Amino acid sequence: MRNILIIGAGRSATSLIQYLLDKSSGEDLFITIGDISEENAKKFTQGHPNAKGILLDVFDEKMRQEAIKESDLVISMLPARFHIEAAKDCLLFGKHLVTASYVSKEMQALDSEVKEKGLVFMNEIGVDPGIDHMSAMQVIDRIRDGGGKMLMFESFTGGLVAPESDDNLWHYKFTWNPRNVVIAGQGGAAEFIQEGTYKYIPYHRLFRRTEFLEIEGYGRFEAYANRNSLKYRSIYGLEDVLTLYRGTIRRVGFSKAWNIFVQLGMTDDSYSIPNSEDLSYREYVNLFLPYSPTDSVELKLRHNLKIDQDDLLWDKLLELDIFNHEKKIGIKNATPAQALQKILMDKWTLKPEDKDMIVMYHKFGYELNGQQKQIDSNMVLTGEDQTFTAMAKTVGLPVAIAALRILNKEITTPGVQIPINKEVYEPILEELKSYGIEFKEHFTKYLGYNPNNVGS
Amino acid sequence: MRNILIIGAGRSATSLIQYLLDKSSGEDLFITIGDISEENAKKFTQGHPNAKGILLDVFDEKMRQEAIKESDLVISMLPARFHIEAAKDCLLFGKHLVTASYVSKEMQALDSEVKEKGLVFMNEIGVDPGIDHMSAMQVIDRIRDGGGKMLMFESFTGGLVAPESDDNLWHYKFTWNPRNVVIAGQGGAAEFIQEGTYKYIPYHRLFRRTEFLEIEGYGRFEAYANRNSLKYRSIYGLEDVLTLYRGTIRRVGFSKAWNIFVQLGMTDDSYSIPNSEDLSYREYVNLFLPYSPTDSVELKLRHNLKIDQDDLLWDKLLELDIFNHEKKIGIKNATPAQALQKILMDKWTLKPEDKDMIVMYHKFGYELNGQQKQIDSNMVLTGEDQTFTAMAKTVGLPVAIAALRILNKEITTPGVQIPINKEVYEPILEELKSYGIEFKEHFTKYLGYNPNNVGS
Repeated sequence: MRNILIIGAGRSATSLIQYLLDKSSGEDLFITIGDISEENAKKFTQGHPNAKGILLDVFDEKMRQEAIKESDLVISMLPARFHIEAAKDCLLFGKHLVTASYVSKEMQALDSEVKEKGLVFMNEIGVDPGIDHMSAMQVIDRIRDGGGKMLMFESFTGGLVAPESDDNLWHYKFTWNPRNVVIAGQGGAAEFIQEGTYKYIPYHRLFRRTEFLEIEGYGRFEAYANRNSLKYRSIYGLEDVLTLYRGTIRRVGFSKAWNIFVQLGMTDDSYSIPNSEDLSYREYVNLFLPYSPTDSVELKLRHNLKIDQDDLLWDKLLELDIFNHEKKIGIKNATPAQALQKILMDKWTLKPEDKDMIVMYHKFGYELNGQQKQIDSNMVLTGEDQTFTAMAKTVGLPVAIAALRILNKEITTPGVQIPINKEVYEPILEELKSYGIEFKEHFTKYLGYNPNNVGS
Repeated sequence: MRNILIIGAGRSATSLIQYLLDKSSGEDLFITIGDISEENAKKFTQGHPNAKGILLDVFDEKMRQEAIKESDLVISMLPARFHIEAAKDCLLFGKHLVTASYVSKEMQALDSEVKEKGLVFMNEIGVDPGIDHMSAMQVIDRIRDGGGKMLMFESFTGGLVAPESDDNLWHYKFTWNPRNVVIAGQGGAAEFIQEGTYKYIPYHRLFRRTEFLEIEGYGRFEAYANRNSLKYRSIYGLEDVLTLYRGTIRRVGFSKAWNIFVQLGMTDDSYSIPNSEDLSYREYVNLFLPYSPTDSVELKLRHNLKIDQDDLLWDKLLELDIFNHEKKIGIKNATPAQALQKILMDKWTLKPEDKDMIVMYHKFGYELNGQQKQIDSNMVLTGEDQTFTAMAKTVGLPVAIAALRILNKEITTPGVQIPINKEVYEPILEELKSYGIEFKEHFTKYLGYNPNNVGS
């Protein structure tokens, strides 16, 4: 028996656990699920004979070390900032580790010791980061192996509501942490390069500088820029690439409407509103508008942001009921962002029968034999239900597959890793196809490279 | 002989020093001017027999303590963050202190010791803070003494170019630290109250939410909100006031044009542009616009911010020559704000013959005998030349007058003080009149209070 310890049994762990339970007899696995709620941990075992659920408080050193000591490999599904203690214990007791989170500085600092002990600490192997790395590197390596030179890499991901459950004007529901959606893009200008020129978009313009994307069978999407595109230069070996851009996918029209909240200052998370608990939605909106003894909140908002009364934007705001006199924010000392989240959750929470959808889209521009070419690659996955969501599958399955392959010594390169090597991504992407996670490629004309004319 | 030590001989110290030199014989004063440049310090003495200039590095403890020990009162004209070491030495050696800066936490912490020793540490006695405190409290105290109840206090200050030197489309030149102008308003939403309702303006809307002000003989001005209006509730004893708002004055149209820079992200001071040194002004502007192989920087900017070609806004941008191909930013790793400052300084630097102007405007709303009333009060001062500027007079004269009155035991309340008590503001405001610093009051209708109808 090989023992796998999973720390943290949340909504994103369903497909991960299902995969490992399904493989447990054939692969001789015993799965221990440790969670801060023992009841929750036990529920996730589904009464399977090769699994048990235990109480595990990751901040209780004794409890944590005992569980890790008994395992051969640890999967941490906790929020990123909680991995490091488990990682140090894995090093201490000589256990492999798998996470779906970005490599933190603390995690990276363990690299040489992890290598010395011949261990694999695989990170960033969920969906984003994870499937994005693997699917991008597969095409980039193929282009390079064929003698091509990379000119452009653009990559977009979005967690959305599935078309069959899409029943609001925003074409959006919360399929993941709502807070991250409300504060998305904050903390500094988005930086990227387009055709060799640095470009910067301040937060308050982010949702007005979108790109369109078209996916056959799914129609049109839009994307706004992520903050950190430039770090992918070194990760993917794209130091000389002329265009590097990463973005977040929404349905067309979302960003233009979301920009209203940004403009008003409703997404600000840096200060508290003293009397937030008792404010009606209407009073909350009025905080961000000039005082008038006579004009309505509606007209002040329309005038302030120059919204015509027949603009669909306006219907989107009405749909959220933001001008309601009676509904209260009901949160003490809420930040504007927390209050907005409350208003949005009234309307954007998934219904029991709703399904989610993950969309990923890459563009690869390259030069081969003096010719400029482009490959577009996309993946769309719809969730089965609210247990086996597209999010849970795309986050959990790569983690589970990687974990098993590490145990089976098919992934062996030691150290603090991310899945950008063929040894890792080829078999995982292949296996993901059988779960419906598959990229479709098409060739298209390479547009826009014209350096003699940039901004002239 | 009473010895006054002035630390820091900058542009704002001219009127301060002139005042004290003029009074030195009659008042038996000896003025020591300490500066990091001994030459500069000596120049400021004008060869006056009652003055000397010395080298003084405020970070050199021995040098600092020797100079302070020999004085009866210290005036620190250094930037606010450098006062504290001098303040501690004043406490150690039992010397009074005067500064024109906001009271820092470190300064406030000295209060009980300062009181014990019977010393006066007078701060915030320049123009803003300073003359604003004094002129506001004079009217507020008068209203209260007459049985009135304060309903509203709005206060605006601006450092501008004098009408006779106003020769650009922005009606603005740098009369003070350019950096503070470029980054003004950043660091969080502006907070204030209007008619009992909290109001918040995010930075990116600040320059679109202006108020107009009219001053007889000087025409129209506009003002945008300062960040920190609410702290004046406790300072001025205005806890129950319905409207509290502080703002910065510009000529009409400045803010709408400045907003272009804010929108583009050019005022951001939080990141560096890697290749800033070699960027032309045009390339710098293009950093903040979408890539296009064909469209010009001009058209991209106009389209992005929806500026009509016949809008005066556009002429303001052209006047700054921001689309120039050849002029270089010339600063290594500049932030966007530093690069913008460079561009603006080409055009907004005062010419040798230019004069500056300080404008201050208060509105006091109150209720007396069941009637709502309003007093508006304003002060405009034009500089004489580039030595005795309006800024140097309004900053330096109150400091000088306060210093002399402390020495003469006319200001005696011990502790860390700001000039909000009658003992302090009445004689100083009276004396400032003889230097042309005088407020004009007029009564006006109190507008707008209609709580039953707010935002309904």
